[in-house]
Parts: sequence; C-alpha cells; structure tokens
Amino acid sequence: MGQDTTPLIGSAFMKRFGRGNVLVKECPSRSVLQDVTSRWGVLVLFSLLDGTHRFSELRKKITGVSEKMLSQTLQALEADGFVLRIAHPVIPPHVEYTLTDHGVEVARRVEELVDWIELNIGDILVAQHKYEALKGSND
Amino acid sequence: MGQDTTPLIGSAFMKRFGRGNVLVKECPSRSVLQDVTSRWGVLVLFSLLDGTHRFSELRKKITGVSEKMLSQTLQALEADGFVLRIAHPVIPPHVEYTLTDHGVEVARRVEELVDWIELNIGDILVAQHKYEALKGSND
Repeated sequence: MGQDTTPLIGSAFMKRFGRGNVLVKECPSRSVLQDVTSRWGVLVLFSLLDGTHRFSELRKKITGVSEKMLSQTLQALEADGFVLRIAHPVIPPHVEYTLTDHGVEVARRVEELVDWIELNIGDILVAQHKYEALKGSND
Repeated sequence: MGQDTTPLIGSAFMKRFGRGNVLVKECPSRSVLQDVTSRWGVLVLFSLLDGTHRFSELRKKITGVSEKMLSQTLQALEADGFVLRIAHPVIPPHVEYTLTDHGVEVARRVEELVDWIELNIGDILVAQHKYEALKGSND
C-alpha cells in the first residue's frame, strides 16, 4: 500500500474524478456496470429483491442458469458489495445469499428496467415482427 | 402464418401470458433484456439519450468498442424497436442512429442504473477493497 500505483478508492477516487464515467474504458464504474448487467447478474439481483435465497433456490428460480455461472455471478456481486453470502456453521453446510443495502439500491433500478420490458413485451414482439418482415422484403 | 407454431405477438401474447417473465428461459422478454443489458447495449442506449449520433460518433464516445461489436449491438437494438437507423440517400452514405419512443423509455431506466453506479463508485471501490483484503486473509 501507499505506492503511487495504488488505485484510488473511496473519497480519494471521488475527490479526483467527481464521479464514475461508464463511457470511459478504464473507469472502474464500467466493470461494476458489467457485473450488474451481466446475463445472470441482472436476474440474480432481481430475484434477491424477494428476500434471502439459498443457492439451490436461486438455481430453481432462474431457469436455465448453470451451477458454474450462478456461482461466478454471485461471487462477482459479492465482491462488489451487492450480495452478502451467509454461511451458517452447521452440518450439512447451509449457505444463503441476501442483498446488502447497496444491493437493494441497485436491484431496485434493475427491477424498473425488467418491469418495463415485461409489461411492454407484447409491443416489442410486434416491433421485432415488423423488422423481420421488412428485412425479408429487402433481401 | 396462421399455423399453430406461430409465436404469439402483441395483444395475443399479452392475452395469453398477462406479461413477460424474465426468469423463464423461454420467455421472449429474457432475450430482450439481454439485448438491452448486453456489454455494449447498455452503453449505446445510454449514449443515445443525448440525441442522434452517427456510427463514428458512437464509436468515439464509447471507448473500447470495436466496429463489429457496435454494429451488432445497434442491429439488435434496431430489431427490438429501440433504435432507429436513418440512412440519408447521399454520397458518401450518411447514416444516423436515434432512439425510438420505446428506446427512450428503456434508456431512461438504464440511465437510472448507470447514474447510481457512477455516483456510488467510491463506496463500491471500498467494498471491493475490503472483500479482496478479507479473501486474502482467508487464503
């Protein structure tokens, strides 16, 4: 620590840059955005808004996710401070996942996006259909 | 058309299912969510909130995106009806991209998420730092 190459964190980062900028490749906010909006990250955050879940419950709820991808996704969200992994010291092991306060903040915004898409999927499907029809007639 | 295998669209989809459900692998809302939250989809939607852009302007604005990935991303968002591609019939060709009304709706929600991350990146970096330190001490 203390070297000049130490990345800035916390208030030091904010003092230097004011805020993050996801449009800049090197800004750490871009990689956080990628964790949050990853294929499974979005669905994990959204699912955990309902409350604490065990790994197996999440796997069942988010159909199609593999054990490996769910595990990687949870670890990335844990590393960013959005998900808390609670390992109960019992046999057999009992591990649960829950949102942190930051996790709730970010998951609520994900939920707004998911809600809009779920409510408007009928119209979006019509738009997709028109696009395909137009493309077909141009080919 | 009219076969039993035709996917339901528009009001027929909504009448049958009520709304989309991104947690279900087969639901078309999941693939739309993936287009919107793809690595570059998020950044394209966010960028276009500022107004119409040429391809080269988007490439310059979103640092790190390749020509191929930007092109694929724009095409997916166009196919979903979020982005409009305007080809002016001039020489040399002049193509612009702009958000549709649906695109603005979805991009605003993406912006809420981006804003939160950009404003809280200092704290997130602190959380990442703590996680890494704890992980290091447990190894």
